[in-house]
Amino acid sequence: MRTASSALRSKDLLGIEPLTPEEITLILDTAEGFKEVSERPVKKVPALRGQLVINLFMEASTRTRVSFEIAEKRLSADTLNFAASGSSVEKGETLIDTAQNLMAMAPDMIVIRHKYPGAPKMLAERLPASIINAGDGSHEHPTQALLDAFTIRERLGRLQGVNVSVIGDIAHSRVVRSNIHLLTKMKANVTLAAPPTLLPAQVERMGARVVHSLDEAIENADVIMMLRIQLERQGKLSFPSLREYYNTFGLTRERLKKAKRDVMIMHPGPMNRGVEIASDVADDPARSVILEQVTNGVAVRMAVLYLLGGAHGAE
Amino acid sequence: MRTASSALRSKDLLGIEPLTPEEITLILDTAEGFKEVSERPVKKVPALRGQLVINLFMEASTRTRVSFEIAEKRLSADTLNFAASGSSVEKGETLIDTAQNLMAMAPDMIVIRHKYPGAPKMLAERLPASIINAGDGSHEHPTQALLDAFTIRERLGRLQGVNVSVIGDIAHSRVVRSNIHLLTKMKANVTLAAPPTLLPAQVERMGARVVHSLDEAIENADVIMMLRIQLERQGKLSFPSLREYYNTFGLTRERLKKAKRDVMIMHPGPMNRGVEIASDVADDPARSVILEQVTNGVAVRMAVLYLLGGAHGAE
Amino acid sequence: MRTASSALRSKDLLGIEPLTPEEITLILDTAEGFKEVSERPVKKVPALRGQLVINLFMEASTRTRVSFEIAEKRLSADTLNFAASGSSVEKGETLIDTAQNLMAMAPDMIVIRHKYPGAPKMLAERLPASIINAGDGSHEHPTQALLDAFTIRERLGRLQGVNVSVIGDIAHSRVVRSNIHLLTKMKANVTLAAPPTLLPAQVERMGARVVHSLDEAIENADVIMMLRIQLERQGKLSFPSLREYYNTFGLTRERLKKAKRDVMIMHPGPMNRGVEIASDVADDPARSVILEQVTNGVAVRMAVLYLLGGAHGAE
Repeated sequence: MRTASSALRSKDLLGIEPLTPEEITLILDTAEGFKEVSERPVKKVPALRGQLVINLFMEASTRTRVSFEIAEKRLSADTLNFAASGSSVEKGETLIDTAQNLMAMAPDMIVIRHKYPGAPKMLAERLPASIINAGDGSHEHPTQALLDAFTIRERLGRLQGVNVSVIGDIAHSRVVRSNIHLLTKMKANVTLAAPPTLLPAQVERMGARVVHSLDEAIENADVIMMLRIQLERQGKLSFPSLREYYNTFGLTRERLKKAKRDVMIMHPGPMNRGVEIASDVADDPARSVILEQVTNGVAVRMAVLYLLGGAHGAE
Repeated sequence: MRTASSALRSKDLLGIEPLTPEEITLILDTAEGFKEVSERPVKKVPALRGQLVINLFMEASTRTRVSFEIAEKRLSADTLNFAASGSSVEKGETLIDTAQNLMAMAPDMIVIRHKYPGAPKMLAERLPASIINAGDGSHEHPTQALLDAFTIRERLGRLQGVNVSVIGDIAHSRVVRSNIHLLTKMKANVTLAAPPTLLPAQVERMGARVVHSLDEAIENADVIMMLRIQLERQGKLSFPSLREYYNTFGLTRERLKKAKRDVMIMHPGPMNRGVEIASDVADDPARSVILEQVTNGVAVRMAVLYLLGGAHGAE
Repeated sequence: MRTASSALRSKDLLGIEPLTPEEITLILDTAEGFKEVSERPVKKVPALRGQLVINLFMEASTRTRVSFEIAEKRLSADTLNFAASGSSVEKGETLIDTAQNLMAMAPDMIVIRHKYPGAPKMLAERLPASIINAGDGSHEHPTQALLDAFTIRERLGRLQGVNVSVIGDIAHSRVVRSNIHLLTKMKANVTLAAPPTLLPAQVERMGARVVHSLDEAIENADVIMMLRIQLERQGKLSFPSLREYYNTFGLTRERLKKAKRDVMIMHPGPMNRGVEIASDVADDPARSVILEQVTNGVAVRMAVLYLLGGAHGAE
C-alpha cells in the first residue's frame, strides 16, 4: 500500500512535528522492506556504499547509537563515532564549531544526540549534510516514535483509530512528545496518565486526552506504552517513593485484568523492572512487544537513512 | 592431519571444559589456514561478509578486544563495540535485558568479557546468537588456552606428552583453568608452581601436578608459562613484596640454567617486566614465543568465529 | 606539475624535518587527486583494501583521530582505534610492549599521537609497520604542516616567496615547529610573533624571523597563522589575563586593517573565539580558510597513507 509520497521533503529528520502523514507512511513502508534484510543470512544492502555517517553523541546513549550504527552498516555506509568525552568539545569548542569542522570532512549524514532541545535544528540550518535527530533534550526523538508506530501498525494493521495510552513520566519525555505528534497526525487516539507532578501543564493542547489513574488509562487501550522512570535522577524524585509509584502507576498482571485481553504492551527501554513495569508483564510472550520494538528500530533507522541518503542523489 | 570432526557441536564457545579433543584439534587445524591470511598483503577473506559480531566488553580489556576485532575484520564481518561505561548498563539495566536488546538487533555472534563467571553461559542459554567467552571472572578464557596450544603445537609439532609448567598467580587466573582443561584433554603433562597463597585448594583434582618451587617446576619443562601478577591489585598482595616474588618465582636467565636448553617461554601478557619475568628472558629471541602467542591469537579467534559463524549456515 | 620524486624514501612519516622538498611536493601533489575523491557521491577508492591501520591515540584528540579515520576509510583500509584509557597501558605496560603486541597482529600502518617527543621514532625503529606521527609532545605534527602548506599552495599557487606569519604560543606548539621546517624548506619566509614568555630562546636558528608585535607580524604577511592558547592549562598562563592577550595578540577586524587586503587567515583549531581570534575574523568568508584547512587535512592524510601504504607493495 504505497502512498503518493515517494521522497521526504526535507534533507533532515529533526522531529515528527514537521512531517506529513504521507511522509510518515513512506518511512514506515520503506522500513518494512528493510526489516526483511535483517532476517537474511547476509544482512547487508549496498544502498549507502561510500557514504559517511557520523554519529555525534554528545550525551551517552549506547542503545540508540548501537541501533543507528547497525542500521548504517546494513546499508554499507562508512560510520564514525564522535563522543563528547575526550574531544575538542571538552576544550571549550562550541557545538557549531565542532559541527562545522566535522562538516568540512564531508560526511553525508550526521546523527546527533544532544541534551539541548534544538541542537539538531541549529546544525541542520548551517550544514549541507542531512541531520538526524537521535534525541534532543526533552524536545523530540523522532526515530523512537517511528519505530513505535511501525510496531503498532505491523501488529494491528493500521494506526487510525487505535487507542494508545502512554503512562509515566510525561513531563521529561521526548519520546512521548514525538509519539503524540505522530499518533495524532495518523489519527490514533492518545491518552496520557501520570502523577500530577510528572504531567506538564496544557499537554492536552497537543491533542491528547489526560486521565489521572492507570485504570482509566488502560481501560479501552489497544496499546499501553510505559515510560521509563529516570532512576539515575532519583535524588529529585517527583513522587514519594519508588514503591508508591509502582503501586499507583506500575503495570502489573493484576492491573492488566482491566485491560483488553490482547492489549499490546510497549516500553522504549531501558526498563526498570519492578518500578514502572512488573517483570512478568515485560516478558509476557503474547502481549509484550518490547523486544520487537528494538528489532524494528534498526529497520526504521535504515529507512530514514536510506530516504535521506537518497536526498543527495548519491546512491 | 585432519580429524574426524568437521564442525563444533555447540553454537557457542563458553570454555575449554565442554570441548572434545577432536573439537580442539579442529579449531587448531582451522587456525593454521587463517594464520596464513594475516601474512598476505590483502589480509582479508569474505567468510563472514554481512554477518554482525558485537564485542560486549563489560570489563576493560583492550588487547583481547583488539585481537577479536582484527579477527572479525579479516573475516569481513561487520563489528560493533559495546562497552559497559556510558551504556544502559550504568542506568541499572540487567545483563539479560542488555543482551536481549542486543539480540533483538539480530547479531550473528556476541563476544563477551564479563567479571562474573557464568555470564557467557547465561547469554548462550537465552540467545540464538553464538556466544564466545572472552574471559568470565576467574572461570575460563578459552581462546587464550587455544592460542597457547596452537603456539606449542606449531613449534613442537604435538601436544601429547609435552611437559608444561605454569607458574605464578594460579588462584585468580582464568587463563590457567582453561589451559589445564585443554592440556590434560590433549594428554600434555601440566605442572603448577606458586606461592601457597596463590594456589587454590585441591587444584590437583583438575589433573595437574603441584610443586612448590620454581626450580622444580622448570626442571623437565618443555614449556614454561609465566602468569601475570596483578599489580593493579597491589593493595592486597598475597606475598610480602614484589622483590621477594621476583626472587622466588620470577623467571630470570640465572634460573633458566636449570631448564632444558630449548624450553619455550610463554606469557599471556601484559607482562610486568622485573616482577614475574626478567626483561632479557621476555625478549629472548630463541626461547620466548610471547609475541608469537599474540600473532596466533588472531588466527585462533578467526578459526573460532569462522567455525561458529558456519553454525548458522550463513556463509 | 609532477616532481622527479615518485615515492617517499622512508617507510614512516615522523616529521617534516627529515623530508626533502621533492617529497613534500609529492605528498601535496598526491593530495590534490585525493581531495577530489571526497567531493564525489561515492567517496571511496580501493587503494588500501585489506590493509589494517591502527590509530594509537595515547593522548586525547578527537579531531585528528577523526580526520585520519575518515582518510583511512576513504582508502578502504580497515581501521582500529586504540586509546590509552582502559587499556593494558593503564596496567603499567610500556609503550614498546604495547606497540610490539599490536605489531604481532600484523597491522600495515600505525598512526600515533603521544605526549612524549620521539615516541613515534621509537616505534618506527622497532616495528616493520609504517608509523605516522599524529603529534608527539612539542616535537612535530607533520600532517598539520602538510595540510597548511596544501591550503596555501592551493590558494596562492606556490609556497616559494610567500610571507607566512605565525602568531601566538610558539613555545608549546608542535604545529609551529613542523610548519617552520616545511615552509623554510619550500623557501617561504616565516615570521614569528608572541609575548616573550611564549617564545622559545634561539628560535631564529630554525630560519624564522622574530618580531615582537602583532602589527609588525601582519604588515607584509600573505598568510597569518593564529595558534591556539591552551585554555585548559589556564592555571599556568604565561600572560596576565586572557583579555590582555586578546588586546595585544588577538586578531581582530581592527588589527587586520594593517594587513594586506587579501591576506589568508589560518588556525589549526580548536579555536578560542575572543581569545586569540575574533569571531568575525574566524568566519570571514573571503580571508579565513580555517574550514578549508580541515577539508584539506583529510586529503593530505589520504596522500600520506597512500604513499606509505604503497611502501609495502601491497596495493
